[in-house]
Amino acid sequence: MTPKAFRVGLLGHGTVGAAFQELLEQRAAAIAREVGVRPELSGVLTRSQGDFADILERSDLVVELMGGTEPALDYGLRSLRAGRHLVTANKQLVSRHGEALFAAAAEAGVQLRFEAAVAGVVPAIRVIAEMLAAAHIERVHGIVNGTTNFILTAMERTGASYEDALREAQELGYAEADPTDDVTGKDAAAKMAILARLAFGAPVHIDEVPHEGIENVTAEDIAYARELGLSLKLIGSAERVNGGLSVQVYPAFLYAGHPLAAVNGSFNAVTIESPAITEITLSGPGAGGTQTASAVLGDVISAMIPPPFGPPPAAALPLVTDRESAFYLHVEVADTPGVLAQVAEILGLQGVSIESVVQKGLGADARLAMVMHPVLESKFRAAVDLIGRLDFVRSAPRVIRVIAETFE
Amino acid sequence: MTPKAFRVGLLGHGTVGAAFQELLEQRAAAIAREVGVRPELSGVLTRSQGDFADILERSDLVVELMGGTEPALDYGLRSLRAGRHLVTANKQLVSRHGEALFAAAAEAGVQLRFEAAVAGVVPAIRVIAEMLAAAHIERVHGIVNGTTNFILTAMERTGASYEDALREAQELGYAEADPTDDVTGKDAAAKMAILARLAFGAPVHIDEVPHEGIENVTAEDIAYARELGLSLKLIGSAERVNGGLSVQVYPAFLYAGHPLAAVNGSFNAVTIESPAITEITLSGPGAGGTQTASAVLGDVISAMIPPPFGPPPAAALPLVTDRESAFYLHVEVADTPGVLAQVAEILGLQGVSIESVVQKGLGADARLAMVMHPVLESKFRAAVDLIGRLDFVRSAPRVIRVIAETFE
Repeated sequence: MTPKAFRVGLLGHGTVGAAFQELLEQRAAAIAREVGVRPELSGVLTRSQGDFADILERSDLVVELMGGTEPALDYGLRSLRAGRHLVTANKQLVSRHGEALFAAAAEAGVQLRFEAAVAGVVPAIRVIAEMLAAAHIERVHGIVNGTTNFILTAMERTGASYEDALREAQELGYAEADPTDDVTGKDAAAKMAILARLAFGAPVHIDEVPHEGIENVTAEDIAYARELGLSLKLIGSAERVNGGLSVQVYPAFLYAGHPLAAVNGSFNAVTIESPAITEITLSGPGAGGTQTASAVLGDVISAMIPPPFGPPPAAALPLVTDRESAFYLHVEVADTPGVLAQVAEILGLQGVSIESVVQKGLGADARLAMVMHPVLESKFRAAVDLIGRLDFVRSAPRVIRVIAETFE
Repeated sequence: MTPKAFRVGLLGHGTVGAAFQELLEQRAAAIAREVGVRPELSGVLTRSQGDFADILERSDLVVELMGGTEPALDYGLRSLRAGRHLVTANKQLVSRHGEALFAAAAEAGVQLRFEAAVAGVVPAIRVIAEMLAAAHIERVHGIVNGTTNFILTAMERTGASYEDALREAQELGYAEADPTDDVTGKDAAAKMAILARLAFGAPVHIDEVPHEGIENVTAEDIAYARELGLSLKLIGSAERVNGGLSVQVYPAFLYAGHPLAAVNGSFNAVTIESPAITEITLSGPGAGGTQTASAVLGDVISAMIPPPFGPPPAAALPLVTDRESAFYLHVEVADTPGVLAQVAEILGLQGVSIESVVQKGLGADARLAMVMHPVLESKFRAAVDLIGRLDFVRSAPRVIRVIAETFE
């Protein structure tokens, strides 16, 4: 008996689109054997050929791999409203227009899937979606941008400057000619908005995610931190805090025992924390064409079978911005007596407690590198502001968060 | 509208059973909200109360948490044949009687789920099952026993002997009073039989999985290996080799860049490799009562909704035992001239190539610790056999595998 056909319309035929088409043809027979339905391409829309309305008509599911928000949003909404499942790898689309897409999917009773929009081959979306009913998720955090992780790993290993490490990443194809979205943390912010929406059911728009990037990280910070047993990662974090939700992207130092500390090079990783399970960490290579295509195909297969869960209804969870964290502080000072005492006094007056210090003389100057115990960010920033105004401080103090937990 | 009830019968009420009951009651409302069906306990069978036939009659799904193979097998088969889904955390049951259970589930058209039987909170079964149609899996390997990983981590960090590290693990509750199944690799072998069946569709019985444990690992091996940049893990591996399937458990040295090298303490981790995705690593705490109960509940929820995939049909994939690996070799020798040359000559004659050597004098004796390039195991064992017979060799040579790949 010939298995029933499941018609897949493909929008976009760049690197990922071409890899998806190849993978689909390669796996169609195996999928038919496992699932009992055979996926087949019903049409491909490229810049120069194909007609969207025609492809839509002839498809059970639409795969959107065009990128950008227009016409991807228009085509996506029209697909869902016409009762077609939608699979997309487009993080801009989902992090900006998630609510419109979720609503259209729920109304039409079809599936909206976007595993490939986050964290490369790491099945974070799938694992979170399947955990939702069984466990109360407290925090999702991780390394969701391979470009910045490659750069930070290179800086840590070779002592290279940010500029040199970026250039190496560009030469090896890990960073684009214009790396802005990656190095400013914007790409990671889009992914965290998507993960937060899923894990906590609260609508989060990318513009609501504060993000710091790695452009101002110096080789010196990394070297000092190494002496303190720390390594630097660009962390995306979404977490319940005081009845609200905090979603942020920032560079952070991790102690060696943290599961994310060992994630190096262009790898991505996501840790999901819940009281019942403690934590699960998923890691793997950041997105390449074949890897992304593989995540898209996984979504297509899942959509071929009845939906396990609908998207969680949107809940009102206030966004929290001021929250507790440990911090690293680096200050360049004149090497005169009493400097450390004055800095320490200001910190103490603001209720900031120092965990460890490295001080080094450099001719007439000295460098202070310190790690603080966890403290409310507003208090710490107030102290840093005061420290920055001291006469003997030579340049603006540098601040980087520290994730103080270790696990095993 | 009151959601429909889904009746869950519970067999066994030890640590995991009690935790499961508590978790089920705690999450029932949230599950009803997400899935549209409300799970409720229809009966509990303990040693002193409850009747299996009665519970079976009143259940849509049976959760087996009794352990052992009898009466768990009898009850499990009767549940499946009566058209009830079966969820079990029992690795002995699935690794010994998987084929009978899979067949009964397929015949009755019900689900057999066993996430909690393998790798603690790490959703290895779920991720592999969902990848099967989309990707061709080449290898599944990992650290699937938390007790031995705790012991090896302690030995590495403190230089403790195996005996002292085991005692510490027992005192902290990471090892049982009788640790035999864990330290001999038997527990890991059961888990690898289950993972291999799932990932490769080939029936694998626990008795077909060769396993070495960690009882003979010495503090000295670990110290020498450290100088070579290696750390020791008990690795379970299931892999396609020459058209067949190799499933084994053995202690192995890993280089620092390997994703499993950073998995410390009682944590578990599983890496799944496939050409399309490269690799995914999943890690998390080894099983505790609540963690295992959480994995069981996840299976129950998945069984409440229509089955995504049936179990893959059993395929004939021959088991391969002699295969290529890199090796560490440790030999105690009399400290006389020409010793290294003779050892090297024997290795060379068998086609074994040395990658690195550490030699240390200790009075009249010396220690040779070497790492070989990958070679067919039978050739290397033949060379070791000859080396063991040399006059100047003081005790039986020690051999540990080395996993030579690094990733990132």
